[in-house]
Amino acid sequence: MNIPSKILENAVSEISRLPGIGKSTALRLALHLVKSNSSDIKDLVKSIESLHNNLKSCNICYNLSDSDICDICKSNLRDDSLICVVEDIRDIMAIENTSQFNGLYHVLNGKISPIEGIGPSELTIQELIDRIKNKKIKEIIFALSATMEGDTTSYYIYKKISNLNIKFSTIARGVSIGDNLEYTDEITLARSILKRVPYEQFSKD
Amino acid sequence: MNIPSKILENAVSEISRLPGIGKSTALRLALHLVKSNSSDIKDLVKSIESLHNNLKSCNICYNLSDSDICDICKSNLRDDSLICVVEDIRDIMAIENTSQFNGLYHVLNGKISPIEGIGPSELTIQELIDRIKNKKIKEIIFALSATMEGDTTSYYIYKKISNLNIKFSTIARGVSIGDNLEYTDEITLARSILKRVPYEQFSKD
Repeated sequence: MNIPSKILENAVSEISRLPGIGKSTALRLALHLVKSNSSDIKDLVKSIESLHNNLKSCNICYNLSDSDICDICKSNLRDDSLICVVEDIRDIMAIENTSQFNGLYHVLNGKISPIEGIGPSELTIQELIDRIKNKKIKEIIFALSATMEGDTTSYYIYKKISNLNIKFSTIARGVSIGDNLEYTDEITLARSILKRVPYEQFSKD
Repeated sequence: MNIPSKILENAVSEISRLPGIGKSTALRLALHLVKSNSSDIKDLVKSIESLHNNLKSCNICYNLSDSDICDICKSNLRDDSLICVVEDIRDIMAIENTSQFNGLYHVLNGKISPIEGIGPSELTIQELIDRIKNKKIKEIIFALSATMEGDTTSYYIYKKISNLNIKFSTIARGVSIGDNLEYTDEITLARSILKRVPYEQFSKD
């Protein structure tokens, strides 16, 4: 692309380093910014800088937070005997959107993945174990990806703390609600048959 | 969406004001920025601020430029008796990419559009006329959108300066190269038949 200005070219190359933003989109955004007024630019820049300078990680659960302890950990309306273990803060947002969980969270900041060179020590697993030992926890719910890495991670954590008197559970896996069986992938369908649920238990919900 | 932090929420709302960026993409970008290192953030912020503070509009053709006169207007390798009239700086980039035009440009910064409240005085039409009167120009090439607004704009400019001894032309319209006729829209096809070109002239190219 022939970009008529070094300043614009530099901005396009910076913006296109963001995930999912190609050169064309970056150019469109840059040209939009050129035409934006000063206060809009200032607001955008300030909010970006603030992300880096002011945003904190909750000292307890590693959720993103404006203060040292996040709103969920601070709240006394939540059941602090339940901990839902997730990979990423996005998973917290997804689960919070369902309004079906009233416990606390623990963000691992990833999952064990030897291929990507991520071992247990890169994650907040030790912090989870310390947290469990120091507080009365009734149940640990694993809400990790339904992948080899997710399963490895939950198994690793389970093995580390299975001696404690805690209930362990993992979120249900099977055919997505609303899915037609003919479009469900084979592995999910096969597992759904193997792990079938007694109808009495199913129809109670 | 349940965003766990005011700072993050503010960044998401600022980023999602950019064109073509929805809330989900904005959240993805914001979370990426949270994890980016300080120098990357600084580079991004600097390049955005620079777009607004340092980027100039060429005093002659209104192309974007790092200095008062853009590289195209400055160049003495270009034919300064040809002016290609375009709506937007993106059109200059597109035409420059073809490497088929060696003249100068004039950016109107839009097209006449009564519906959007854009009249001739909002565009750089008077500046184009002044430019033509002050310099020896042989040909004006209209490279505007093939729409009602584009046609109105070129006709308005033509009427204003048709008394000058200048050749006027407009870029060719017809079936796109590589297109199958069955997929070409009716209006383009109808116009292509009406405005057919003598074969001898066509096969010369």
